[in-house]
Amino acid sequence: MKKLLAEFFGTFWLVFGGCGSAIFAAGYPELGIGFVGVSLAFGLSVLTMVYTVGHISGGHFNPAVSFGLWVGGKFDGRDLLGYILAQLIGAIAAATFLYLIVSGKSDFTDIGGFAANGYGELSPNGYSMISVLITEFLLTMFFLLIILGSTNLKAPKGFAGIAIGLALTLIHLISIPISNTSVNPARSTSQALFAGGDFTLQLWLFWVAPIGGAVVAGLIHKGLFDKIED
Amino acid sequence: MKKLLAEFFGTFWLVFGGCGSAIFAAGYPELGIGFVGVSLAFGLSVLTMVYTVGHISGGHFNPAVSFGLWVGGKFDGRDLLGYILAQLIGAIAAATFLYLIVSGKSDFTDIGGFAANGYGELSPNGYSMISVLITEFLLTMFFLLIILGSTNLKAPKGFAGIAIGLALTLIHLISIPISNTSVNPARSTSQALFAGGDFTLQLWLFWVAPIGGAVVAGLIHKGLFDKIED
Amino acid sequence: MKKLLAEFFGTFWLVFGGCGSAIFAAGYPELGIGFVGVSLAFGLSVLTMVYTVGHISGGHFNPAVSFGLWVGGKFDGRDLLGYILAQLIGAIAAATFLYLIVSGKSDFTDIGGFAANGYGELSPNGYSMISVLITEFLLTMFFLLIILGSTNLKAPKGFAGIAIGLALTLIHLISIPISNTSVNPARSTSQALFAGGDFTLQLWLFWVAPIGGAVVAGLIHKGLFDKIED
Amino acid sequence: MKKLLAEFFGTFWLVFGGCGSAIFAAGYPELGIGFVGVSLAFGLSVLTMVYTVGHISGGHFNPAVSFGLWVGGKFDGRDLLGYILAQLIGAIAAATFLYLIVSGKSDFTDIGGFAANGYGELSPNGYSMISVLITEFLLTMFFLLIILGSTNLKAPKGFAGIAIGLALTLIHLISIPISNTSVNPARSTSQALFAGGDFTLQLWLFWVAPIGGAVVAGLIHKGLFDKIED
Repeated sequence: MKKLLAEFFGTFWLVFGGCGSAIFAAGYPELGIGFVGVSLAFGLSVLTMVYTVGHISGGHFNPAVSFGLWVGGKFDGRDLLGYILAQLIGAIAAATFLYLIVSGKSDFTDIGGFAANGYGELSPNGYSMISVLITEFLLTMFFLLIILGSTNLKAPKGFAGIAIGLALTLIHLISIPISNTSVNPARSTSQALFAGGDFTLQLWLFWVAPIGGAVVAGLIHKGLFDKIED
Repeated sequence: MKKLLAEFFGTFWLVFGGCGSAIFAAGYPELGIGFVGVSLAFGLSVLTMVYTVGHISGGHFNPAVSFGLWVGGKFDGRDLLGYILAQLIGAIAAATFLYLIVSGKSDFTDIGGFAANGYGELSPNGYSMISVLITEFLLTMFFLLIILGSTNLKAPKGFAGIAIGLALTLIHLISIPISNTSVNPARSTSQALFAGGDFTLQLWLFWVAPIGGAVVAGLIHKGLFDKIED
Repeated sequence: MKKLLAEFFGTFWLVFGGCGSAIFAAGYPELGIGFVGVSLAFGLSVLTMVYTVGHISGGHFNPAVSFGLWVGGKFDGRDLLGYILAQLIGAIAAATFLYLIVSGKSDFTDIGGFAANGYGELSPNGYSMISVLITEFLLTMFFLLIILGSTNLKAPKGFAGIAIGLALTLIHLISIPISNTSVNPARSTSQALFAGGDFTLQLWLFWVAPIGGAVVAGLIHKGLFDKIED
Repeated sequence: MKKLLAEFFGTFWLVFGGCGSAIFAAGYPELGIGFVGVSLAFGLSVLTMVYTVGHISGGHFNPAVSFGLWVGGKFDGRDLLGYILAQLIGAIAAATFLYLIVSGKSDFTDIGGFAANGYGELSPNGYSMISVLITEFLLTMFFLLIILGSTNLKAPKGFAGIAIGLALTLIHLISIPISNTSVNPARSTSQALFAGGDFTLQLWLFWVAPIGGAVVAGLIHKGLFDKIED
């Protein structure tokens, strides 16, 4: 139960911090934080929460991460459903607060696309479904390789939170223009629920590609690297 | 006494660095640091001081943090008033130096809003009192959860300064457009004293919301996470 | 074999992350990440992979690094050719995926210079061949001094990944306008293959200068610093 | 002798990286790194070199730091002159290479102010001599408090390089518009030599204020904090 609460708070913070910075601060005239600031915000939300509750729940905050760690043999499959539910509830709760706050803006009319993910016409810079599929698959695969490698017993102790958090920053630096960057089905779902319309129809990709990439990373790590490391 | 001096220097640095970067460098034409730079500055002021005097005073630099740690059972309530006074004096001393420096600018006329916090018409981007209240409450609550979690005995040793400092960076990346970001009553008070006018009338919120969020975080940590961790 | 796979994945990530952020996100209107974002991306690609596979292969991801560590006496010369091949294959594989993704952009016509390195007319800001030669030589020399020094037994344990990754960030902050920053022959080769034209004719410099600088750093470290350290 | 070589390389890197990023990359159209990038570059030059040669020379790279550590009782006064000479030679050597590289730019005419420090009419944003004096004094004082505190035996082991490097980043985020940020007489001297004119006449301030602030920090640390810490 403590583990599920830790995943709830961690995923709340990821969505509130990452998506919130995009919604509130990215496009502020002249002084706005742009994609660099949003990339930092997503990464730091995970970095901070890994050090805060990582020793309780492992610090997943992301259904794709839970899947990848399960396949990689580092997470008990019986906890998988509970974790994913806690992550989804945390993400949607955060999106609700983001909506409450932004609707209190004096010139508020509608939320537009919120911070939802999309491809084709809903890609920030017009990338095709195939481009988005490849990108989300590869980025989540490397995200899981980094998580599995940096938490390995032979890696330097304590630094995994820095490596994992800043990996998410890097992932956003690469791919916000492509898909608005998901690599996290809970984050995508929370935003699509509010953005609605075609964003909901495209949500399938942001479950399939991240989980697919994570599963492949789990297999790669288990097959290639694990034996010599432990 | 050493503890109070440590809190004085730490809070001076937080206000001088964080508010100073906003006043001097955020809006510089073309090359200015914008909200990303200000967010980094606030975070790095705390990161650096946690490693400098954290082992002396605990490194609060913020009345809300002192309240939250007290409620969370990590700080002796008899020290609370002294800490808060040292923090206020440090913050106001820093603001005085900021005023001295900025008034030596060749085209100086007045300080405008300094780096004061505000809601409604004084919110940088026109957010309502309710939006600011929710935001400051939630952000301080998570700030304290991060402080309490990352300094826990089971968390990796030595990394708390990084997690806490970068949490403050993240908090600013999210919320400068909303409230100019407080989460710290001492920081807010020091700026409102110089900015004057309606900023002073709104100061109550930047005591109530951060301390409220911090107290709730102390209760959450104590009730939910503490037992299994220690 | 595990070592070569580690070098393959690491160099793939360096090129996919570093060059990818430049291609996809640097010039995005208003919100683009600019050279600061690209510099962060290159540095974080190495920082993350050092913590992920550094304990397997040493984490070179760069033929110049392998040469410098060999001359500095920290890497077995018999592994040199294998490492360089794995790095080249990883870099070219990443470039292939970058091409696949970018060609799925709705308004795609051609890749222009991709993220290739150049001098003279192909320097981003018109720097001469001599300026680029000096810059690439010096920056790679310091990169290797940092790698050799921060992994020394007397340096703080575990922090080398941070120092090495952020050194690459610093190197890019200095020199993107000069040469588009190489310090890595594998990265340069992968981009020149796709950019073609004169970029291919200039590729020699981005093998000679980085490896030259790395070899000199290996000699400096071995001659001046090594004895008193170990 | 190894110590002096370490100080030479470290100060070379600080000037080449920090001032170089300002000269080459800050004002690049659209994509330039601005003051945020320059602030990161200065900080990372010190962060990387502390991990590289900190265990050899202590990692000063700055005459004010050597003075402050001497007064604070952490550095032998007999080494003071040698360190300062090595720092000056390293800084001037780096400035020479910066000049060589920038003069190879196709549209090069003159170096303008290089990355020199100044006040009054030579302050980037028109700050008076008094404002610059206060700023440089206070910032160097806090820089030394951070160096002395974070390297204290009771501070977390190994993290001082991060705290010290990022303190320099913070210092630049605050004060580039005020004085172009010195806090380092060697850095200032190297640039004034090339910039010439009134920059040379103002150089005295960038020796007096940083060393003054550093000495006061040494006294504060020794008098207030040292006894309870060691």
